[in-house]
Amino acid sequence: MELTAEQKQEIKDQQSQSNTTKRVTSSELEKVLYEAIPVLDHGFIRVIDYMGDDSSIVQSARVSYGKGTKKVSTDEGLIKYLMRHRHSTPFEMCEIKYHVKLPIFIARQWIRHRTANVNEYSARYSILDKEFYLPAREQLAAQSLSNRQGKGEILDQKQADEVLKILKDDATRTYDNYEKLLNERFDGSKIDESKVGLARELARMNLTLNTYTQWYWKTDLLNLLNFLFLRADSHAQYEIRVYAEKMLETVKKWVPITYAAFIDYRVGAAEISAKGLNVIKELISGKKVNQEESGLSKREWNELMEVLDKKNLIVS
Amino acid sequence: MELTAEQKQEIKDQQSQSNTTKRVTSSELEKVLYEAIPVLDHGFIRVIDYMGDDSSIVQSARVSYGKGTKKVSTDEGLIKYLMRHRHSTPFEMCEIKYHVKLPIFIARQWIRHRTANVNEYSARYSILDKEFYLPAREQLAAQSLSNRQGKGEILDQKQADEVLKILKDDATRTYDNYEKLLNERFDGSKIDESKVGLARELARMNLTLNTYTQWYWKTDLLNLLNFLFLRADSHAQYEIRVYAEKMLETVKKWVPITYAAFIDYRVGAAEISAKGLNVIKELISGKKVNQEESGLSKREWNELMEVLDKKNLIVS
Amino acid sequence: MELTAEQKQEIKDQQSQSNTTKRVTSSELEKVLYEAIPVLDHGFIRVIDYMGDDSSIVQSARVSYGKGTKKVSTDEGLIKYLMRHRHSTPFEMCEIKYHVKLPIFIARQWIRHRTANVNEYSARYSILDKEFYLPAREQLAAQSLSNRQGKGEILDQKQADEVLKILKDDATRTYDNYEKLLNERFDGSKIDESKVGLARELARMNLTLNTYTQWYWKTDLLNLLNFLFLRADSHAQYEIRVYAEKMLETVKKWVPITYAAFIDYRVGAAEISAKGLNVIKELISGKKVNQEESGLSKREWNELMEVLDKKNLIVS
Amino acid sequence: MELTAEQKQEIKDQQSQSNTTKRVTSSELEKVLYEAIPVLDHGFIRVIDYMGDDSSIVQSARVSYGKGTKKVSTDEGLIKYLMRHRHSTPFEMCEIKYHVKLPIFIARQWIRHRTANVNEYSARYSILDKEFYLPAREQLAAQSLSNRQGKGEILDQKQADEVLKILKDDATRTYDNYEKLLNERFDGSKIDESKVGLARELARMNLTLNTYTQWYWKTDLLNLLNFLFLRADSHAQYEIRVYAEKMLETVKKWVPITYAAFIDYRVGAAEISAKGLNVIKELISGKKVNQEESGLSKREWNELMEVLDKKNLIVS
Repeated sequence: MELTAEQKQEIKDQQSQSNTTKRVTSSELEKVLYEAIPVLDHGFIRVIDYMGDDSSIVQSARVSYGKGTKKVSTDEGLIKYLMRHRHSTPFEMCEIKYHVKLPIFIARQWIRHRTANVNEYSARYSILDKEFYLPAREQLAAQSLSNRQGKGEILDQKQADEVLKILKDDATRTYDNYEKLLNERFDGSKIDESKVGLARELARMNLTLNTYTQWYWKTDLLNLLNFLFLRADSHAQYEIRVYAEKMLETVKKWVPITYAAFIDYRVGAAEISAKGLNVIKELISGKKVNQEESGLSKREWNELMEVLDKKNLIVS
Repeated sequence: MELTAEQKQEIKDQQSQSNTTKRVTSSELEKVLYEAIPVLDHGFIRVIDYMGDDSSIVQSARVSYGKGTKKVSTDEGLIKYLMRHRHSTPFEMCEIKYHVKLPIFIARQWIRHRTANVNEYSARYSILDKEFYLPAREQLAAQSLSNRQGKGEILDQKQADEVLKILKDDATRTYDNYEKLLNERFDGSKIDESKVGLARELARMNLTLNTYTQWYWKTDLLNLLNFLFLRADSHAQYEIRVYAEKMLETVKKWVPITYAAFIDYRVGAAEISAKGLNVIKELISGKKVNQEESGLSKREWNELMEVLDKKNLIVS
Repeated sequence: MELTAEQKQEIKDQQSQSNTTKRVTSSELEKVLYEAIPVLDHGFIRVIDYMGDDSSIVQSARVSYGKGTKKVSTDEGLIKYLMRHRHSTPFEMCEIKYHVKLPIFIARQWIRHRTANVNEYSARYSILDKEFYLPAREQLAAQSLSNRQGKGEILDQKQADEVLKILKDDATRTYDNYEKLLNERFDGSKIDESKVGLARELARMNLTLNTYTQWYWKTDLLNLLNFLFLRADSHAQYEIRVYAEKMLETVKKWVPITYAAFIDYRVGAAEISAKGLNVIKELISGKKVNQEESGLSKREWNELMEVLDKKNLIVS
Repeated sequence: MELTAEQKQEIKDQQSQSNTTKRVTSSELEKVLYEAIPVLDHGFIRVIDYMGDDSSIVQSARVSYGKGTKKVSTDEGLIKYLMRHRHSTPFEMCEIKYHVKLPIFIARQWIRHRTANVNEYSARYSILDKEFYLPAREQLAAQSLSNRQGKGEILDQKQADEVLKILKDDATRTYDNYEKLLNERFDGSKIDESKVGLARELARMNLTLNTYTQWYWKTDLLNLLNFLFLRADSHAQYEIRVYAEKMLETVKKWVPITYAAFIDYRVGAAEISAKGLNVIKELISGKKVNQEESGLSKREWNELMEVLDKKNLIVS
């Protein structure tokens, strides 16, 4: 990730602010405020603003549940209770805003999370940067044969070279042609003075889906955790997972108690179906169980055995 | 409005905070942060937290529209442009949180605005305060005969006395019986040691709809303005309008440029239908127009004439 | 529940419709369409309209996941897969609309589910019916002493009589006074010809929270299942649970495959935290485990033991 | 637009359904149900399902406003009243579902309307069709010089040829390379048996933004009208406007009364600011007005004069 001199100056200016406020403040998050945290080859996330901290969650929960909640002696106890029982509204009382730079094909996944506010850089009004995502070699995996959704083995070096060459050549050529269509370069200089340029709203269609875009993305803590639960998961596509992982680090700085409860009760948890619970009960009582009689499909059975670290019981 | 000693102390503690932050800060709003601003006889609004200011709207609009927006020379010009053309997403980039105390029948209107985060004091867990709304004498209007939605003339003094007596007696009696059902007073003391108390989740059903409740209510600036547009309007019920008016004052302190644009382009504006525009064009060209030939219903016609200050043309 | 002659006629008229459509149709749900299914003493639910069935979920999932999904050989297999992996968007492709009559204090819980469309009978425009909820004797439970949220033992007969008398007397008196305030009875007849009536928007504040209201409530299947998961649960308040249970029966008629998957993978499932999974693994491997060393709180431990039917391990 | 034999058969099968239902049915919309209505060169919209009609709006409004609404003598009068006064919730009681095929750069605009349910064809699981949008010659406009958002003059024939050649060549080449990356053709046949294929979730990034995608898109009538208000507007990008226009025709078939009210009170209406209303009042009273003294900016002034057909007063 290479920031322009202008961007660096903007970040420096933002970070040099020092305002006095009566609002609750998260001192650890303040330290990285506005910082451009690199993701992928040209992307980043930046925390631009936030509202509330762990104490805000406690404050609104105590309003909801009234005097009685004081019996839960500590803030930590209360937050763990709320997370465990999915009492979700108090977590909506915190808000955060990110500035994100990301490839368009990832932006298209991300935007499916609807409960957020978004302002995206518009290629209808402006010219997009000449920046596109090229995967690192170790991310170039083959299509999985067994699992349509996953990736399989890493490509060998020769095929990886071919792939990267194609991606780079096509992105470069289509971007150069994008400029030719616009008859204008990113800096605003004209290419051919005798010609007009195609409307930006049309020219952009020539770009490839690995072109970078950027946006401001604002959401509340509950919806952020739902996003991170899905996108920081090992089944998420690598290219969105790395964003989620960096964001998870900012959550840890911002609301450390909530972060810990989230890891224990959501990320590390497993949802076991009614039939799966029956299998567990039989296993605990020392009975023999097998997939055929369990009522679980092979796939469900194997998922359950993985959760229980019973690799010896996995069926094929 | 009478705050308890405990509440006064909490506000004092919150207001004595002085944190340093790199976030943008609204100095005028900071001055009233946490303050309990009285509304009706026992209600209040308090700004508890906020995120962003006018500059945050500009910042995200410039991301959306790119370099080109720099041609709109000032922040004020840009915000007016966004408001006029209903480019609404930049206004979603600011967030505010209120603590509100309000009668239940007003809370039921308010909650219909769905794009907000809410934590309400729950009478399932706690005992509600013995506080209920009694209208001021000048608010005791008769049902309008011409307009099902509006209020008519103010009641005469004798009938007003009767109304207030009924409201007060019924609210007092039902609250006293609420305590009797609970077998417990608000301070937690038992009434009859030989009895158990009815579950709180049931006992609450005996309260009248003018009982006060309270909640934390958090929303973004766009949805707040939509709420205020409807609820600060002269057609809104008085009892919610007074809340909206006090909130509008906090918006003025928070985002003064946005506030001014909102007043000019939304509050003071009128939406004129296709047929209404035809009438205006004829009026400007000096032609005679009348309701029958305009295609407008009587009611529409009169609404239009009021907007145009043509009271002489109002038909009956 | 007593329907008026007018309501009975309306239902009869609606049910006598017989239209031809190319839309998918749920034959079992058609049988109860418009029927008023009684809930509590005066409430009901009615299915007024619906869109889609199990096949609509499959149809949109196959668009999302493309040709590959054809490998999942059956519709049932696909719906189970979607439910298990919380691939939620296909379930949003079905929509249902209910007409519900319910006490106001329950309406206030219900409305907290924001992703729904609502039109409520407005006491600002109309006069509410003289109908209020009085619990059945076996629902009159004491406040739980151990659990603020739950109910404790059933009241003895004498105290139950007292409670019911209070509830009935207060609701009757406040309703009578409501009419007096309005100077009008429900049938529109004036009470005292020499007086005006208080505006309806004000008079309604004198009613108690067990007064019945009604609304049209429309939502998609995903959000309906989320609602039912919370409200048909044994921890939900009885008075909303009975509505959820009746609605669950309509779901079974409407989308039977989805219903079965919902029962297995959501209702009968349990979410086990990271620490809880460790306890289960130790139990399966035959080790002794106890609450103190598990990292679980007493409460969490007991919840886990209940899920595992290990009542002998519950600690106090 | 060219449908495959398989698609044609699917449409034929869907259209041959004839079910009996007690639900309200829109006979005009039934006639085009499932039909693929062509848009752009390869796109289409299809109405897949719907719920409710004009009478459903009336039904729920009458619940909200109670007996009083019967005074509004006709359904048409009531719907016009609701539209004029932006009483929006009754319009949420109707729902519609479309199947849409559209270029990705248009899908990215469309998805910004968040209050909808979406299932998109996923290039993470499947291989996208070799179909990309090439504008018709008369849509190839230059970037406007005066208005960053709009389009200027149509390109001359020579430059148009160059533009189309670039768009076609780049889309073709990147698609061919997409297949090469996948080592697989759309029909599933392998290209080079000695090689594996790159994971689909990665290969898709090589496609250009004019590649077609498709989705199921479901929303309620209120949000559909908001979408159409913005996207069928003359300022909307042509490529999304043509979709909106075709959808507007389906709205006319579905809910003809609502459609007419929408055209009169929304599409043909104008929102006039407080200052603009002052100008109108002066014009009606025969006074001379000019932009400088009006308090309006040049741009606002000109927009107002256009609304009033006073082209002679437009300033430059």
